[in-house]
Amino acid sequence: MIRLSIIGSGNVAQHLIQLFGKTAGIELVQVFSRNKEAVSNLVPIQKITSDFSELKPVDLTIIAVSDNAIESVSKEIPFENHFVVHTSGSLAMETLDNKNRKGVFYPLQTFSKSKEVDFKTIPLCLEAQDKTDHQLLQTVAKLVSDTVYNVDSEQRKALHVAAVFVSNFTNHMYQIGNEICEENNVPFAILKPLIQETANKILTLSPSEAQTGPAKRKDTQTINTHLNFLTDENHKEIYKILTKSIIDNGKKL
Amino acid sequence: MIRLSIIGSGNVAQHLIQLFGKTAGIELVQVFSRNKEAVSNLVPIQKITSDFSELKPVDLTIIAVSDNAIESVSKEIPFENHFVVHTSGSLAMETLDNKNRKGVFYPLQTFSKSKEVDFKTIPLCLEAQDKTDHQLLQTVAKLVSDTVYNVDSEQRKALHVAAVFVSNFTNHMYQIGNEICEENNVPFAILKPLIQETANKILTLSPSEAQTGPAKRKDTQTINTHLNFLTDENHKEIYKILTKSIIDNGKKL
Repeated sequence: MIRLSIIGSGNVAQHLIQLFGKTAGIELVQVFSRNKEAVSNLVPIQKITSDFSELKPVDLTIIAVSDNAIESVSKEIPFENHFVVHTSGSLAMETLDNKNRKGVFYPLQTFSKSKEVDFKTIPLCLEAQDKTDHQLLQTVAKLVSDTVYNVDSEQRKALHVAAVFVSNFTNHMYQIGNEICEENNVPFAILKPLIQETANKILTLSPSEAQTGPAKRKDTQTINTHLNFLTDENHKEIYKILTKSIIDNGKKL
Repeated sequence: MIRLSIIGSGNVAQHLIQLFGKTAGIELVQVFSRNKEAVSNLVPIQKITSDFSELKPVDLTIIAVSDNAIESVSKEIPFENHFVVHTSGSLAMETLDNKNRKGVFYPLQTFSKSKEVDFKTIPLCLEAQDKTDHQLLQTVAKLVSDTVYNVDSEQRKALHVAAVFVSNFTNHMYQIGNEICEENNVPFAILKPLIQETANKILTLSPSEAQTGPAKRKDTQTINTHLNFLTDENHKEIYKILTKSIIDNGKKL
């Protein structure tokens, strides 16, 4: 039985609490939350603490708080020489305080509180200073996910930036599509199968093979029609810069 | 039995030829292709013509050629007073020559020759001048798709622009993510579940509800870390403009 505790009550922390609370082979020992009520529906109340001095040493302490709080929270931990990880995509393992052995447990996924996720399909990116700690982290990761990767801090930083493009910026493309539909009284729902197919294509084709559209075809007539149609200056600017980027990409190949 | 012919041999034409060749209630009468070999594996050779004067009048003639050829091809049709449609998202119905009755049959999907699509899930956007023609077009559309919409030329133009954002530009975000992974020796495959989940979220959440990431959180520290990490000036510029756009969007709400 691997004993672990989770520090945090946000999006990622809540998903991890629910996950590890029901994983065979894992004992969820404690949850730290400044506001006990935030997690009181996820874990028995006697396991929740809002006082760092009450945190007990366990096999694995997971700090799942916002990036700017990770360093200070790791300093607050009352014990030493135990294994402590953070869950951030963008911060180096070194961000953690030196008094404990360090590692990273980064689930590469977009979490929304209002939507359930199937953890089995989420890639977990692991890093640890110590070999034995790394093995423990792998054991834990493989209990909950089918895809476990070893990723060092520099690679993880690259992944995190790439994830902003393929997820956050992609969702913003959906947002702009939605705005254009609303302005012209067309249901955004018409676009949903296209959104699904665009994501599905990437499972079997490379992004450059999957690229279609007026920019890919260098169809300047359609591009100009679109630019004339767009009234929002921000939409227009984004259309121009991304069209140019797709055209320039074609030249590189 | 509805008798129809298809003009064209490109991506969309090939998908339509295969589709209507096997649809009960539809007789695929002729296929026009300048190069007969391009479609000779899709349809019996005696149905293929490369001579416009051989085209016979049918219930529905579908012009599935590139946007800049639609007008001239519609002039080449040897018969008059029949129902002729194009399949373009960006061109008005009026682009077609006046000698025949006009309409549009626009499948809103991204077609790659190398990937099969399930037509049943593709939204078909229909328009016709004549009421009886419109009914015929609806009958044909409902034989092959579960989602059929009536969309006028102005709305279709909006949809086409929106589709560029949610599909072409989204795929370009995948492309950039791929480039960042390659530059840093991380497998792009790690990002694929995130890409799927980002597309799936949009089925149940609005794009603004689904938005996550440093720009949404106005997390300037992470944004600056990312900008320092990016070495490609084009990636950097796109990161900046899309981050600004997400932040400005947050202010509007």
